Amino acid sequence: MTGYAARYPATAHTFLRGLDDDVTIDEDDGHHLSRVRRLRGGEVLTVADGDGRWRPYTVVRVRPGTVDLHAEGAPVVEPHLVPHLVVAFALTKGTKPELAVQKLTELGVDGVTLLSTRRSIPHWSGSRADAALARLRRIAREAAAQCRRARLPDVDGVRPVAELRGRSGLVVADRAGEDPARLPSPAGGEWVLVVGPEGGFDPEEAATLSSPASGQAGPARLRLGPHVLRAETAAIAGAAVLATRRAPERRD
Amino acid sequence: MTGYAARYPATAHTFLRGLDDDVTIDEDDGHHLSRVRRLRGGEVLTVADGDGRWRPYTVVRVRPGTVDLHAEGAPVVEPHLVPHLVVAFALTKGTKPELAVQKLTELGVDGVTLLSTRRSIPHWSGSRADAALARLRRIAREAAAQCRRARLPDVDGVRPVAELRGRSGLVVADRAGEDPARLPSPAGGEWVLVVGPEGGFDPEEAATLSSPASGQAGPARLRLGPHVLRAETAAIAGAAVLATRRAPERRD
Repeated sequence: MTGYAARYPATAHTFLRGLDDDVTIDEDDGHHLSRVRRLRGGEVLTVADGDGRWRPYTVVRVRPGTVDLHAEGAPVVEPHLVPHLVVAFALTKGTKPELAVQKLTELGVDGVTLLSTRRSIPHWSGSRADAALARLRRIAREAAAQCRRARLPDVDGVRPVAELRGRSGLVVADRAGEDPARLPSPAGGEWVLVVGPEGGFDPEEAATLSSPASGQAGPARLRLGPHVLRAETAAIAGAAVLATRRAPERRD
Repeated sequence: MTGYAARYPATAHTFLRGLDDDVTIDEDDGHHLSRVRRLRGGEVLTVADGDGRWRPYTVVRVRPGTVDLHAEGAPVVEPHLVPHLVVAFALTKGTKPELAVQKLTELGVDGVTLLSTRRSIPHWSGSRADAALARLRRIAREAAAQCRRARLPDVDGVRPVAELRGRSGLVVADRAGEDPARLPSPAGGEWVLVVGPEGGFDPEEAATLSSPASGQAGPARLRLGPHVLRAETAAIAGAAVLATRRAPERRD
């Protein structure tokens, strides 16, 4: 647990752009804090800006759906976890992206990218994709509040597999891959875990993923046990395995 | 992927006690195979006994809700994964045991034990507990069919934390614990991953868990990243991490 969460482990936690000395939380968060969490004057909570800064506040006043807060201390920056970790997983029939985004947020990933593949379900496009992404970002925010992160993960998509080509730090989840203990730290400071559809990438996509950028090695392959994993299980399991290799960044 | 799943990767898979040459699948599984999967005469599927033996079969006849099969080869035993792995997690308000059991089954655990703790929800007892366990066992069986395991995990509970006292191979999920790479293999051939409620075990339970049996060391402590994980997330993440340390048992 980072110092921030350790010092205020059981308080409410929410997000707000701009951590001024006096702030007001309204809309959905105000409703949640006033009606669901039923905060009362004098209680302490933590507020983060979603970008790594957080600050403890005391509740000054509670009105229906709105909570007025006064800062208890200066903003503090939560250290980054390194290596940086992005998880890109394929959307297919039966994939549960909501579940994956919630669990990946708890596991501390910096970004989630939804991939479209040849074997993907087709209906993530245009306004439907926008609405689905907005919903996933809300889920990430709720999970980040629940697990007390100061940084919100980037939730992004839907991207074709070809966009990953040659990207530094690719790690493809692969039953025939390597033991995670043998996975080297990424040269560029970032892992991009790639999880294909349950039937695997189609041959052209697999070739695209395997072709390295000039001067680089191809992607690493990470073994996640012997069984056939659903896409969201592989994403969560892979993030859990890589998370144990991450540590707070030292700023000497 | 074990040889068994690798040889028949995309066929249907189901469970039946007794892998005779000619078998009939009826009830829920018969319904699923005939109505949902819509198997037809001549198709191949795999059937496992849930205890490690599996066998390929050809569909001889499909009637509504019933499928008659004839064996295509002799039964084969799927090797155990070692170390053995049991996950014991605390049931609390908001815990999603169905999700945990599904994902833990995909990740290959041998057993799941539901724990009651001082901070647990109280309504898992008597006939309600029996019904809930029966439901979790159905979920494990469905997940095992989907991920093509030949062994069903034992799903067991609800047990008080005190029953774990002095058990060999205890590994307690703990944010202040060790890096998984430093976790030694269990002397007794089995890990029992213990996940407490989100608020932690109460002090007496924690003391019970920490007191070793005579002549043994206390439980190992496994770090699963810096954030506050929901109980089911910690169970899944811990199993994913330990799963990467497991391998098929060699029978020389």
